[in-house]
Amino acid sequence: MFQELVHTKAFQSYLEKVDFPPVPQYLYDPIRYILSLSGKRIRPLLVLMGAELFDESIIEQALPASAAIEFFHNFSLIHDDIMDVAPLRRGKPTVHQKWNGNVAILSGDALLIKAYQELAKCPTDKIPALLRLFNATSLEVCEGQQYDMDFEGRASVTESEYIDMIRLKTSVLLGCALQMGAIIAGADDRSQKLLYDFGVNLGIAFQLQDDILDVYGNPKSFGKQVGGDILSNKKTILFVKLQELISLADQKELTYLLGQTIDVEPGKVDKMMDLYAKYDIQTLAIYQKEKFTTIAYEKLSAIQIPSDKKQALFSLADALMYRVR
Amino acid sequence: MFQELVHTKAFQSYLEKVDFPPVPQYLYDPIRYILSLSGKRIRPLLVLMGAELFDESIIEQALPASAAIEFFHNFSLIHDDIMDVAPLRRGKPTVHQKWNGNVAILSGDALLIKAYQELAKCPTDKIPALLRLFNATSLEVCEGQQYDMDFEGRASVTESEYIDMIRLKTSVLLGCALQMGAIIAGADDRSQKLLYDFGVNLGIAFQLQDDILDVYGNPKSFGKQVGGDILSNKKTILFVKLQELISLADQKELTYLLGQTIDVEPGKVDKMMDLYAKYDIQTLAIYQKEKFTTIAYEKLSAIQIPSDKKQALFSLADALMYRVR
Repeated sequence: MFQELVHTKAFQSYLEKVDFPPVPQYLYDPIRYILSLSGKRIRPLLVLMGAELFDESIIEQALPASAAIEFFHNFSLIHDDIMDVAPLRRGKPTVHQKWNGNVAILSGDALLIKAYQELAKCPTDKIPALLRLFNATSLEVCEGQQYDMDFEGRASVTESEYIDMIRLKTSVLLGCALQMGAIIAGADDRSQKLLYDFGVNLGIAFQLQDDILDVYGNPKSFGKQVGGDILSNKKTILFVKLQELISLADQKELTYLLGQTIDVEPGKVDKMMDLYAKYDIQTLAIYQKEKFTTIAYEKLSAIQIPSDKKQALFSLADALMYRVR
Repeated sequence: MFQELVHTKAFQSYLEKVDFPPVPQYLYDPIRYILSLSGKRIRPLLVLMGAELFDESIIEQALPASAAIEFFHNFSLIHDDIMDVAPLRRGKPTVHQKWNGNVAILSGDALLIKAYQELAKCPTDKIPALLRLFNATSLEVCEGQQYDMDFEGRASVTESEYIDMIRLKTSVLLGCALQMGAIIAGADDRSQKLLYDFGVNLGIAFQLQDDILDVYGNPKSFGKQVGGDILSNKKTILFVKLQELISLADQKELTYLLGQTIDVEPGKVDKMMDLYAKYDIQTLAIYQKEKFTTIAYEKLSAIQIPSDKKQALFSLADALMYRVR
């Protein structure tokens, strides 16, 4: 993991040098603010690791692309938080909460454009390919967010619709990050595609795991309130699986539970978990998570470079998936 | 003007071929809607005319760039209309009004990304330069919108602040459109810069003229309600000039008028026009408009190509400025 710290430090010091003018302050202060909330910086790390995989000497040239990905991610957080009326992000007030909706819309727009400014700093001969990939991915992320909002208003969602939504909303950006690194390092098309698929499948597995941990995680190690998804009737892999399998008789109980808040029905989480247990939903969800994890690992394995070069990415994937290999 | 119709038709038929998927419908329907409200398509026309100026054979290659500019412009309309709580755009409901704020935010984002997708379709060797110019301009447009919102909450704004705001918010995009055409046609840096400056100065002059017509225009030929800017206390070139020159005694009258709606003070427009007349504000504003128009024409004149090639752009500028040369 030592090399990852080096990458993260390199990214951090690159980030500090990116120019955000002092004025207009309501445009750039929110950008400085959201970037300072930091997070794990996993996406820029993936860009640098994607580049390192094929050419260790080229990492510095991948820094602007890693900033592009991080800026895009933070732009999407600012705008998603408006749409989701979220008061907090990483434990701090969201941009629209701290300032207002207009400031959040416009500073988000500016941050998206700043992402493209970083793209323009990439090696000139790589810009057209990077731009095409980045555009396609960004549009998919918007589509994913729209499907996510659409699903909220729908009574039922199929498993494949759900997985396609999380693929678009969160996973393609991980694949994009890795592939951008690979493009900069001059990897061939087949390797680029395999690395992209590794990222996308790992991203889906990670989101499914997040759904599972929300209900079955250890409250001490899981960062959020356990059962939060159940309380908010969120459509998760567990929920869509249950909907798919539930009997007509149990559907009545499910419909009842969905109509209750915790104040009216203090046993909402427990009763929902009883339903999950009855249909062995946890096992089925873990199976799906494992399926996507396995595909991810197979894709990385299939890249034709010495396996010791892939060790860092396998380790990162293990760490993300809490796996001991 | 015949050639312009050819360009506009070429752009329109290019636009019809741009792919907007049917789903998610709340993402792409608003995009199809705003683009169908059309407007004058002046910005894509400028891209094509900028290209034609240096290489008549290259116009077709400039179509994606013209779409990029038009998409960016429409993205900014969708988001500005949310921020300005505008109910109507080109006589039709705005996107946030017809759907809702979330749909307007996200479909605007998607349209901005679609602009970059068009950029990626430009001639490969021109993409890096086009991307840099487009990014810098887009960011300036955001800054202009932020300053415009900032000014609303301020008691006074200087003339130079005002002109800088309109330069950023509306004029740089005209310069950018023309320069993108010039880049695609392979124009040298000096010519590119002159053409850009022509567009920016023409844009400022056009906005100043709009301010003047709002008060002194012929109600029959001016598309909006005459006096609308006065009624909404909008900061215009007339207003900032008056603020700069007004005596302490008259300041009291101005402050009074600013505090009244038309219901309470039916003579608001007339009394404000009396103040404008007392300080000869119309003449001073026309002087400024002429100054920027003259600079624009000088910039275009200074480009070292046969003057008959520039005729189309001079004519377009004349038409925009209602001038008879």
